[in-house]
Amino acid sequence: MKYIKTYIQENKNRFIDELIDLLKIPSISADPKYKMDVLNCADSVASSLASAGAENIEICKTKGYPIVYADKIIDDTLPTVLVYGHYDVQPADPLELWDSGPFEPIIKKTKIHPEGAIFARGACDDKGQFFMHVKAFELMMDNNTLPCNIKFMIEGEEEVGSENLGEFVVANKEKLKCDTILISDTGIISNNTPSITTGLKGLSYIEVEVTGPNRDLHSGLYGGAVANPINILCEMIASMKDEKNHISIPGFYNNVIELSSQEREEIARAPFSLNEYKEALDLSDIHGEQGFTTMERTGIRPTLDVNGIWGGYTGEGAKTVIPSKAFAKISMRLVPNQSDEEITNLFTKYFTNIAPKSVKVKVTPHHGGEPYVSPTDIISYKAASDAMLTTFGKTPVPVKAGGSIPIVALFEQELNVKSILLGFGLDSDAIHSPNEHYGIFNYLKGIETIPHFFLNFTKMFNSK
Amino acid sequence: MKYIKTYIQENKNRFIDELIDLLKIPSISADPKYKMDVLNCADSVASSLASAGAENIEICKTKGYPIVYADKIIDDTLPTVLVYGHYDVQPADPLELWDSGPFEPIIKKTKIHPEGAIFARGACDDKGQFFMHVKAFELMMDNNTLPCNIKFMIEGEEEVGSENLGEFVVANKEKLKCDTILISDTGIISNNTPSITTGLKGLSYIEVEVTGPNRDLHSGLYGGAVANPINILCEMIASMKDEKNHISIPGFYNNVIELSSQEREEIARAPFSLNEYKEALDLSDIHGEQGFTTMERTGIRPTLDVNGIWGGYTGEGAKTVIPSKAFAKISMRLVPNQSDEEITNLFTKYFTNIAPKSVKVKVTPHHGGEPYVSPTDIISYKAASDAMLTTFGKTPVPVKAGGSIPIVALFEQELNVKSILLGFGLDSDAIHSPNEHYGIFNYLKGIETIPHFFLNFTKMFNSK
Repeated sequence: MKYIKTYIQENKNRFIDELIDLLKIPSISADPKYKMDVLNCADSVASSLASAGAENIEICKTKGYPIVYADKIIDDTLPTVLVYGHYDVQPADPLELWDSGPFEPIIKKTKIHPEGAIFARGACDDKGQFFMHVKAFELMMDNNTLPCNIKFMIEGEEEVGSENLGEFVVANKEKLKCDTILISDTGIISNNTPSITTGLKGLSYIEVEVTGPNRDLHSGLYGGAVANPINILCEMIASMKDEKNHISIPGFYNNVIELSSQEREEIARAPFSLNEYKEALDLSDIHGEQGFTTMERTGIRPTLDVNGIWGGYTGEGAKTVIPSKAFAKISMRLVPNQSDEEITNLFTKYFTNIAPKSVKVKVTPHHGGEPYVSPTDIISYKAASDAMLTTFGKTPVPVKAGGSIPIVALFEQELNVKSILLGFGLDSDAIHSPNEHYGIFNYLKGIETIPHFFLNFTKMFNSK
Repeated sequence: MKYIKTYIQENKNRFIDELIDLLKIPSISADPKYKMDVLNCADSVASSLASAGAENIEICKTKGYPIVYADKIIDDTLPTVLVYGHYDVQPADPLELWDSGPFEPIIKKTKIHPEGAIFARGACDDKGQFFMHVKAFELMMDNNTLPCNIKFMIEGEEEVGSENLGEFVVANKEKLKCDTILISDTGIISNNTPSITTGLKGLSYIEVEVTGPNRDLHSGLYGGAVANPINILCEMIASMKDEKNHISIPGFYNNVIELSSQEREEIARAPFSLNEYKEALDLSDIHGEQGFTTMERTGIRPTLDVNGIWGGYTGEGAKTVIPSKAFAKISMRLVPNQSDEEITNLFTKYFTNIAPKSVKVKVTPHHGGEPYVSPTDIISYKAASDAMLTTFGKTPVPVKAGGSIPIVALFEQELNVKSILLGFGLDSDAIHSPNEHYGIFNYLKGIETIPHFFLNFTKMFNSK
């Protein structure tokens, strides 16, 4: 299988250039002003699949942004792998914290990426990662070594909750029929320690609005006598957690499964340095739920974070105002057995209950997703694990991660098939943050590992 | 003294037009991008004083915006009144809540102002109010009835804490020498119930910054394991008050003088309808320190309000980020005997102490001012009270107000003279808010009342 390495060696500059072109498109799905860019990005994805040798290419309309579908069916008796990814990206702000333009990709060397990394919004999440599959597919097509059928479903609304993908999946079960789903939208522990994500958190994302007086007021004339919606919102947010940093919403933990000591020991076995963690983030101390380690807090415990807050005067200087309204975006990451709908309801009920009579509150759920657990005793996991063993020289560690890919639970429910989370990013890649980047090493290692997965999976599937 | 009413009647349209021209200048001192407008406004004020008959007009440079000085000294043996006001205005945002442009003044009738009100930023605070003095001065000059000496000091930094006025006053004690200071930057209870402000709160205004991780993080990968600066800031703000809405900063109330039951009874005597108050602000309930009435909360109790808060993602849609930083602007209104410097120190110490080790905090004091009490047994108060009795037909009620004019305490300290707060605004004028306005009735009533003050004061001063 020397051809894999050879092909990558001969084509790597082009692979990088093509990804850079894709990264120049500001396909921000959350912001309507980038609508044309998101649509152009879908076209670009379709073209790249066509060039790589895919057939039945379709830019499938939805109520929102389109889903790019393509396939290559070589033999109905062979297994089928469905590759899922997304071409939309997170908003780029705060822009002032980027060292270079978020949509002007550049390659820079870093301590973690001595071979260089591509800096751009979406470099890792998820353009760089889904594009590995396009290039791995091209490699197999050009070398005439594609061992099974392949389908692509690359969507444009992952960063806004995949609102229209569910309907598409339900309406296209036959078209999407497959034996496993392969997704690269997660990470590995480090470039020396490969890992495969076996658990994903669910998500409940909520926007709240607190209204005090019906207009902005002078804080001298009214201060102390009317509810200041910012103070009240802060008090309500503070009431979301107790002094042990447990979440205070009644019923929040009802369905959370306590892990066995054996499972906790397994988590503790993954390589992790608290000092390095604190140093990388410039933290004097970590902060989280009492009674759990950092790995447990991110991996297996549900969490609540305010993702944005605003209200009153935020310009330069001083303005003595009591604003009429204050706002926050609050999200909760959920663990297996918690339901995003139930948690959203519990949050709404609690938030409404704790509001004093002196304010009005409005709660708007943004989007949610169920948690997901990927088993390690199925052939698709084994195929992925062996592929990484071949390309990294080490068996990957199974890891439960805090991230959410809400649609994965739906795939299982509707298509009755498990997903394998074979991602190649690093925690330090700054996804969703300024200066997002993706290592050249990781990009090429992904393109190298994916064909091995296809070969392993087909072989194991056929010998079932 | 019929000439006062006659002159106003004959000139009122011009008085209104001239004020409208002044209101068109966006003299926002807090925002550097309006620098040229603030400077142009100073020129305009100087011109209007010259036209009215003032002499020794000077646009006095400071480290910030200039102070406009002018005077008319008719006889060294007569008393001198110093008129203070400010030509700068508050920022106009949120712009989307204005029904017309903040710097495109228009006259509209309202329920409270059946004769019409001028809608514009600064209409009441303080352009409309200091300009009454310019027009009243013109009236007295044109009718040759100015009974004493007059000095004007109109500054351009009141809305940003009068940072350079203190130095100017100290350096110009001889120039500013006077027997009383007259200020119109406060209000009356209603157009049927005149009042004179006899107490002003002090102010401590602080900006805080809370830093968690050194960069924005993905809330799935890091949520629950690192301090989210927004959650922490909310918890810290919530810790500023206890469940009785007392301020929790240790030592905060140390110097607050408890009012006697007689004084509290006097406050309760001022006309006030809680139902009307709630209805006007569309509030289901009021909110404030336990054990005190609304009038006491605004008039005689120190308060703490968050005037602005921001952090994380505040755009459309959802972004799952843990921001690196969160910010708030927090102000405290102080009552007699509290010192803004001491309170600022107590706040800073407390805020730093309650911060968990997992975050860094930065506290930046913006500006402060001492509280002020105006006695009612001095001739300048009597002169003002009698003037209102003449023009309103009712003796004004002395009222302690929550607003702050920080420089008033400094005038007393440096110039050894009391200030009279003869304002004509209404609480409903929405100063510092969208749709600020000033009643035509109030504007003209002010111009009418001021000459009576001058006449009364001169007479009482001479017969001392």
